[in-house]
Amino acid sequence: MSEMRYDHTTGDWVVFAPLRKLRPHAETSPASSPPTEQTRMSCPFCPGNESMTPPEIAAIRPDGRGDSEWLVRVIPNKFPALRIEEDDRRRQQGRLFQHMGGCGAHEVIIESPDHSLLLCQQPVEQIERILRMAQSRFNDLMQDHRFQSIIVFKNHGEGAGTSLRHPHWQIIATPVVPRMLRQRYEQATEHFDRTGNCLYCELVNEELAADERIILTNAHYVAFMPYASHLPFETWIVPLRQQATFGQVPAGELPALAGILREVLLKLYVALDNPDFNLTIDVAPRGDEDKEYYQWHIRVLPRLSTTAGFEMGSGMSINTVLPEEAARFLRNGRSSTGT
Amino acid sequence: MSEMRYDHTTGDWVVFAPLRKLRPHAETSPASSPPTEQTRMSCPFCPGNESMTPPEIAAIRPDGRGDSEWLVRVIPNKFPALRIEEDDRRRQQGRLFQHMGGCGAHEVIIESPDHSLLLCQQPVEQIERILRMAQSRFNDLMQDHRFQSIIVFKNHGEGAGTSLRHPHWQIIATPVVPRMLRQRYEQATEHFDRTGNCLYCELVNEELAADERIILTNAHYVAFMPYASHLPFETWIVPLRQQATFGQVPAGELPALAGILREVLLKLYVALDNPDFNLTIDVAPRGDEDKEYYQWHIRVLPRLSTTAGFEMGSGMSINTVLPEEAARFLRNGRSSTGT
Repeated sequence: MSEMRYDHTTGDWVVFAPLRKLRPHAETSPASSPPTEQTRMSCPFCPGNESMTPPEIAAIRPDGRGDSEWLVRVIPNKFPALRIEEDDRRRQQGRLFQHMGGCGAHEVIIESPDHSLLLCQQPVEQIERILRMAQSRFNDLMQDHRFQSIIVFKNHGEGAGTSLRHPHWQIIATPVVPRMLRQRYEQATEHFDRTGNCLYCELVNEELAADERIILTNAHYVAFMPYASHLPFETWIVPLRQQATFGQVPAGELPALAGILREVLLKLYVALDNPDFNLTIDVAPRGDEDKEYYQWHIRVLPRLSTTAGFEMGSGMSINTVLPEEAARFLRNGRSSTGT
Repeated sequence: MSEMRYDHTTGDWVVFAPLRKLRPHAETSPASSPPTEQTRMSCPFCPGNESMTPPEIAAIRPDGRGDSEWLVRVIPNKFPALRIEEDDRRRQQGRLFQHMGGCGAHEVIIESPDHSLLLCQQPVEQIERILRMAQSRFNDLMQDHRFQSIIVFKNHGEGAGTSLRHPHWQIIATPVVPRMLRQRYEQATEHFDRTGNCLYCELVNEELAADERIILTNAHYVAFMPYASHLPFETWIVPLRQQATFGQVPAGELPALAGILREVLLKLYVALDNPDFNLTIDVAPRGDEDKEYYQWHIRVLPRLSTTAGFEMGSGMSINTVLPEEAARFLRNGRSSTGT
């Protein structure tokens, strides 16, 4: 049973999900230690333990094998923040206490049967499968018109808020457009209205011209650390051609996306010794997929520092590493071939 | 040398302060262990080590004692995010790379000569001195018209981002109004325009009427956990009478403020076993101190959970504890007299 409440002081909806208190915590052994047989026996994401999860939503299976084997598997989150069964009608108590049911969806994409292989250590074909599955779930959830926003993300490491170590992504569908996303979209729309250009396309062009913060490019994507990065080593992956949402990426471009994502994560893994990080996929709001105002992108957000009182009191970030220095370190500092 | 850069995608200015990488880290011994003689010798905030800090800005001294003794002491932060010497002119590289000097101020208020006495363990008179000093520094910094916003905050515990254990507050003056504060003020202004009432005063009245989330009240203040709290056990302290900014609190009301702050922190200390927390003071923007749109307030933000990918990708919070349950636990769950 979850609920959403409207914060009049900020304009945000807050998700209340008391059930999530009950979710299990990450194993306490160091992340680098190999999983024991006992770990594999108790991990709900490991092969053989499929009955420990809610019923499967989707899977990618190896060709010609039985239904028991899978390469990528999607299940409902057992401790969901939002649920499809809840009611999305707004209700009111008194004058200012506005709430609604915690209507939405919360799914888990298990990256592979392997309990301890990190995303950057997977073959590029497997990363492509994960992205294909994320896109397929994204587009399927968009069919439910109660969902206004679909947030695709990944948490790696306890400092990034992960509670189960077996590598996985998550998708949460929300019944409102989050205010932060609305506001970013307004920035981009205002820029388009004023200049006639997509803000993100212009930013990418300026970054390519400056050539100080670029990590990699390939036929379809560029990876760079933005001029005004909020976090040290924050890295964006952006399509070179304007595309408003992740749901639009042509199947033929997914291998290039998988390749650049793998390379970026591998460079961060090597340079920063397997840092905790979050990964998010930012997209245009529902209904604006055909407009030229926005460019969907991946943000990789290493969690190297702790948010403190200044950030919580002002909403501003203090970044102790200039992105051009971080980019130089990542490009030249160490070899990216060894894992 | 610090710098600010404008993020066109969000509308935020980001502070770049590479020097802050060099600041010392908190002692690694558990927070509950008593300080050793060696700790006191090396702590720049302990009496006798005044020469280890930049020159003192202000102090409260015991009556009739020499200049070497102090009860509360203010110094410049040795690793400042922003500095008074920097230039606040906007500059531009290319079309989209806007920046300015890291112009501002960054001060530290040392709470007491005692290395290990927590704020909630101080006598109420000492907390009043700290608040009086914070207010005095706030009003003094407001004299510099380059500073658009003054953020007063405290970090307690490593999970809240503190780097030195000796209890202290910090003040950062910024050359721009942070976008988050601008946006909150707009919410309050819009509410005032629509209803003719101060949003915060109305929220307080509704909370008092509901009486489900109130922690304490006294003659001048109320402490409660807001209906749409973003974090578990988030607690606000709000004046009962409309006051736009902390700078306006009459001296005669500071003892009541010190008293309610002490009681709130003590209840959290007991109920949650000395949790890490941030404390922030939220105020109306410069120039709007005479308007009735806003109510300054203290937010106490326990750091019980980790922000993860959903929060970073959407800006929305998932709170696993309903504020009425948290308030009941804090009010009735345990005695608040023991420390």
